[in-house]
Amino acid sequence: MSTGPTVGEMGEFALIARINQGRTQGPAVRLGPGDDAAVLAAARGHFAVSTDMLIEDRHFRRDWSSPEDIGRKAIAQNAADIYAMGAEPTGYVIGVGIPPDTPAEAVLRLADGFWDEAARAGGSVAGGDIVRSPHWVISVTAFGDPLDDAYIPRSGARAGGTVAIAGSPGWSAAGYAVLTAPEVAGNAETQRALAAHRAPRPPYDLVRSAIRDGRAPGALTDISDGLLADLGHLADASGVAIDVDFAALADPALRRCADALEGDARQWILTGGEDHVFAGVWPPGSAPPSGWTAIGSIEAGQGVTVGGVRYEGPTGWEAFAGTESAKSDRSR
Amino acid sequence: MSTGPTVGEMGEFALIARINQGRTQGPAVRLGPGDDAAVLAAARGHFAVSTDMLIEDRHFRRDWSSPEDIGRKAIAQNAADIYAMGAEPTGYVIGVGIPPDTPAEAVLRLADGFWDEAARAGGSVAGGDIVRSPHWVISVTAFGDPLDDAYIPRSGARAGGTVAIAGSPGWSAAGYAVLTAPEVAGNAETQRALAAHRAPRPPYDLVRSAIRDGRAPGALTDISDGLLADLGHLADASGVAIDVDFAALADPALRRCADALEGDARQWILTGGEDHVFAGVWPPGSAPPSGWTAIGSIEAGQGVTVGGVRYEGPTGWEAFAGTESAKSDRSR
Repeated sequence: MSTGPTVGEMGEFALIARINQGRTQGPAVRLGPGDDAAVLAAARGHFAVSTDMLIEDRHFRRDWSSPEDIGRKAIAQNAADIYAMGAEPTGYVIGVGIPPDTPAEAVLRLADGFWDEAARAGGSVAGGDIVRSPHWVISVTAFGDPLDDAYIPRSGARAGGTVAIAGSPGWSAAGYAVLTAPEVAGNAETQRALAAHRAPRPPYDLVRSAIRDGRAPGALTDISDGLLADLGHLADASGVAIDVDFAALADPALRRCADALEGDARQWILTGGEDHVFAGVWPPGSAPPSGWTAIGSIEAGQGVTVGGVRYEGPTGWEAFAGTESAKSDRSR
Repeated sequence: MSTGPTVGEMGEFALIARINQGRTQGPAVRLGPGDDAAVLAAARGHFAVSTDMLIEDRHFRRDWSSPEDIGRKAIAQNAADIYAMGAEPTGYVIGVGIPPDTPAEAVLRLADGFWDEAARAGGSVAGGDIVRSPHWVISVTAFGDPLDDAYIPRSGARAGGTVAIAGSPGWSAAGYAVLTAPEVAGNAETQRALAAHRAPRPPYDLVRSAIRDGRAPGALTDISDGLLADLGHLADASGVAIDVDFAALADPALRRCADALEGDARQWILTGGEDHVFAGVWPPGSAPPSGWTAIGSIEAGQGVTVGGVRYEGPTGWEAFAGTESAKSDRSR
C-alpha cells in the first residue's frame, strides 16, 4: 500500500525530526525533544509517574488495529494510571521499537495516535527513543500533577463505603470476541465493541470533575487487568473486602452484543479489563458524584465477591498467561 | 543451569513482589511500586527525564552479557543522559518484556543489575511494568534534579571554547571487537574491553564535581552514538564547528588491545560510542576542571573535523543500520 520510504531508508534522525515536526508542546514541557533529556515542570515539587509496555501480537495486533489506534491505546492506558492517582498528565516520553522495513508513514500515524489521545488526556509527548526491533514494541511513561492537594491511593477504602465506577466495562473484551469470532454480522454494538477494543476512551473527565467539585474518592484505581482483579488489588491494599452488585453493572447493549456472538457479557464485564474505566470508593453516607455508578460496597474482611459469592475462574489478565495472540487466550 | 521456576510458573504478581523484596527506595521516591503510579519528588519544581529502549540481539546479547551486566548497562545509559543535562538521577521506572519460559532467577539478576548501577549513579527503581514478549526488551526512563540552578544543554558552545572529555572512549567498541574476533588471547586490555562493553561505567563523579566546584561547562553531552557523531549533535545545536585533536585522545592501552586484535583504535575512539563518556565545552580562557581532558576546540562554522580534516565514513551508531546482531555491523 505505502509507497513512501521505510524507516531504514529514512534513517533515525530524519524520522525523529519528521515525527516531531509541527507539534506544539504543552505548558509543562520546559524542554522538548533534541537534547540528552527533556525537562518537565512539576509545579507542586513532586509528580506521579507510570509506565506500560505494549508488545506486538501480545497487547495489540497490526492486522486488527490501525497505527493511530495503537498509539491512542498506548497513551490511554498510561494516562488512565495517572488519573487513577487523582492526577492529570503533564507529559509523556515514549520508546518505540520497530523493524527497519516498516513504512515511515506507519510510524508517523502511530505518533499521530499518541498526540491525538494526549490531546484528550492532557500533556504532550516531550521525548522518546526509537530503535530497531524484530517486532513492534511501545513503552510509554506518563507524568502527572495531582488534581488536588493529594494523590489518591488504592489503600484508602474503609468498611461501609460505596464502590462506584466511571465508564462501561466489558466492551474491550466484547471487541476481542468480535475479532476472534468466525463470522459476525456488523451492527451498532459490534462497531462500538471494536472501537473500544482498538482504542479505549477512559472517562478522564469524570475523575477530573469529581475531584474539582470537592467529591474526591478515598481510594481510586483504573480497571486494566479486569474489574474483579483490580478491585481485588484495591481491597488488598486497603485491607477490606468488596462485594459487587452485578445488577448495577447490567448493560443491555453489551448483552445484545453477547447474544449475537454467543458470548458471556457477565464474564466480559467482571474480568475483561482494558476498558480503563475507573473505580472509586466513597465513604459511608456520601453518594458517588454525578456520572459515577454505584456497583458495590466495602465490608470488613478480605477478597472480592459478586452478590456475596466468590467468582469462579480467573478474575483478569496475567502477564505471562495464555498464547502469543493479543490478549487472546482468556481461558487462563 | 537454573532449576528454579520460570516467570510463567511464578506469575506476574509473585515475580514483581520478589523483584521488589528488600529494596530500599531513595529519598526522592515518595511512593514506590504497588499503586497505579509512583510519586517522585522534584524539589526545584521541575525535573529532567530521559528514556532508552534496549532490544535483545540489537543492544545486548544474552550469550555475551550476564543479566546483571544487561541491567547495569540499561541504567548507565539513561543515568548518563541525566548527568549530560547537568543533573543527577532521583529515580527510574523500567518496562521489561521477557518470554514466559525465562528463569525467574534471570529476571532477579537483571533487577540486581538495575539496582547496582543505580547505587553508583543515584536514584532508585520506583516502579515498572513486566510483560510477555518473544524477546527481551528493556525500557528505562530516568528522572533527575539539576546539580546547580540550571540544566546544561548541548547548545551552549561558543567559538574559542575548549572541548574536554571525562572518561576513556573506545573501550566498548574494543570489547565488541574481542567478542567477535575468531580467537583472542586474553590479557588485561581485553578483559578491560570486555567489561567496558558489557557494562559501561560512566564517570558520573566528574560531572558532579565539576558542577559542584563551580566549574560547570557551557555545553554538555554524553557520548552514546560515537564521539564524532555526538560532538556533531552538540556543534549543530550550538551553531559552531568543532576540531578534535586526536593526539589528545591517544590511549596506549587501547592501542595495545587494537594491535592484538588487528583492530583500529582510532576508529574505536572516534566512532565507537556506548562508553558514555562525557564531553563538555568550557569558554575561552577557562581550563577544563580536574579529571577532564581537553581534546579539541570550538570554532566558527559547522561540522566536526579531526586535525582540520573531515572524518571519512560513518561517525557513529544509527538506529536502523546494520544487521540484527548486537551493535554488530559497524560497516555502515
